[in-house]
Amino acid sequence: MSEKDGTTELKIPDYEEVLAAHERIALHVHRTPVLTSRFMDDLTGAQLFFKCENFQKAGVFKARGASNAVFGLSDEAAARGVATHSSGNHGQSLSYAGGRRGIPVTVVMPRTAPEAKKAAVRGYGANIVECEPSTSSREAVFAEVMARSGADFVHPYNDPRVIAGQATASKELIEDVGKLDAVIAPIGGGGMVSGSCLTLSNIAPATKIYAAEPKNADDAYRSFKAGHIIADDAPQTVADGLKVPLKDLTWHFVSTYVEDIFLATEEEIIEAMYLTWQRMKMIIEPSSAVPLATIIKNREVFAGKRVGVIITGGNVDLKTLPWM
Amino acid sequence: MSEKDGTTELKIPDYEEVLAAHERIALHVHRTPVLTSRFMDDLTGAQLFFKCENFQKAGVFKARGASNAVFGLSDEAAARGVATHSSGNHGQSLSYAGGRRGIPVTVVMPRTAPEAKKAAVRGYGANIVECEPSTSSREAVFAEVMARSGADFVHPYNDPRVIAGQATASKELIEDVGKLDAVIAPIGGGGMVSGSCLTLSNIAPATKIYAAEPKNADDAYRSFKAGHIIADDAPQTVADGLKVPLKDLTWHFVSTYVEDIFLATEEEIIEAMYLTWQRMKMIIEPSSAVPLATIIKNREVFAGKRVGVIITGGNVDLKTLPWM
Repeated sequence: MSEKDGTTELKIPDYEEVLAAHERIALHVHRTPVLTSRFMDDLTGAQLFFKCENFQKAGVFKARGASNAVFGLSDEAAARGVATHSSGNHGQSLSYAGGRRGIPVTVVMPRTAPEAKKAAVRGYGANIVECEPSTSSREAVFAEVMARSGADFVHPYNDPRVIAGQATASKELIEDVGKLDAVIAPIGGGGMVSGSCLTLSNIAPATKIYAAEPKNADDAYRSFKAGHIIADDAPQTVADGLKVPLKDLTWHFVSTYVEDIFLATEEEIIEAMYLTWQRMKMIIEPSSAVPLATIIKNREVFAGKRVGVIITGGNVDLKTLPWM
Repeated sequence: MSEKDGTTELKIPDYEEVLAAHERIALHVHRTPVLTSRFMDDLTGAQLFFKCENFQKAGVFKARGASNAVFGLSDEAAARGVATHSSGNHGQSLSYAGGRRGIPVTVVMPRTAPEAKKAAVRGYGANIVECEPSTSSREAVFAEVMARSGADFVHPYNDPRVIAGQATASKELIEDVGKLDAVIAPIGGGGMVSGSCLTLSNIAPATKIYAAEPKNADDAYRSFKAGHIIADDAPQTVADGLKVPLKDLTWHFVSTYVEDIFLATEEEIIEAMYLTWQRMKMIIEPSSAVPLATIIKNREVFAGKRVGVIITGGNVDLKTLPWM
């Protein structure tokens, strides 16, 4: 099924699929808490509701989409296993979900991915095949892997099952805190943003949806402004989960529902990450700090508003922190 | 009121005072979450319930006791302010509570205390007077400060108001998770352990109470075994909140209600802290890792049991982590 990777038209998931996903994954993922912080509210002038997917299984929201894909397979398809390429977090999540169902998992990931992420994938019992740290190398190596396996390809984000799974996070957020003026999430390939669009356009259509992106990997921003997908090969940013480009499914959601995309520099991302660790006592990965960095920068957009902030994950190599 | 510091007999607080404290502080402190972790349960063979006071105001459980003392003062006494000595966390908490009531706060703390803790105390608007990093120097400098002020002395732990405040943490824990076979907390001066004894002996008398202490600062352990208070001067441990000795009030609770005290080496404490950061994505200070370190070591005591683990705080200098 490697043709899912952009060469065949994929079905846009609808909200019924989000409801089905939420039931399907309920036993396999956490309903994560929503935290607030007086300090962060004072800093930004907004009322922020942090949806803490860093406390999710596998340390990241991607456990939702991966679980939805894995537990939606027929027994026959499941027996052939699943495979994916990923900068780490989706690979880890698919390994978690596959391990939980007891099926084979193969993950293609860059040889430069953090050792902690590789160890976690292996810890769930999955098999790693390494590639070079570029989109083109990853796709080439993965095509080889798929050519010799009958596994089900679970794309990190350009897969309706994955987007429907990620969409359950915003559903819980609205259920827990009620009406929000805005929701903001980091954007890389666009899986979480697309899931947020899918949910909010159905259950909270007045809520504005923003995306936050590293300036050093601003392909989604440039795509959004240009009106068509622009991809970078091998961008460099501390927010290593956000280096991948939009694909057709996620572009559909981003181009249809996103209000605006904001950018943050590497320094701003690291500062926002440090502040979150220091003040909220929770470990977030650099990607998860990009929304806060852009909220601080764009005070006029968010001040006085009730804003949901998706904390996407907490997988960090604790021995190489970006401020050390 | 410096005679509270051990030279005058203090009243042992009763459970009515815990109930009053809980009402008094409700608006000023968080009802912190209780987290669980499949990984930690698999590691220890026990079912662990982490009461997360690292998410407490000021980043530490001591906001409870400090708030109970500050908000229990008459307006007249409050106007003269409060003062204390502290390795940081109680000072920070008293500064928080005093700042919240809008009264003067003076804190005597070691010049070697982490810069982050000093900055936090100053951030709440309190005045710091520095001493040498030993119990004897701290007490001498503090006596001077008290001699020239009419402030109310809020001892970090040997104060019935403080113990009644800390006791509210175990009350919430039992309310949230029900029956526990055991509760374990780190022990330094014994404030949290005493509060846990006060609550559990009243509402859950079958629950065994354990304390966990750094081997490098094992004065509570030696006191417990000897049957009388033994104090070290200036012990050295990464768990810098646990260097202080027991005093008469806390000795009462420890000697009456504690089942046993377990010790952990510096390496074991750092490993347990690292594991907690890595797996639970939450920032805990070294002192808070001592219970987990001793649970891992004393598997035969805890395996198969429902165990409450008090995570006392999350105040760490993020630029000097013990595993770097």
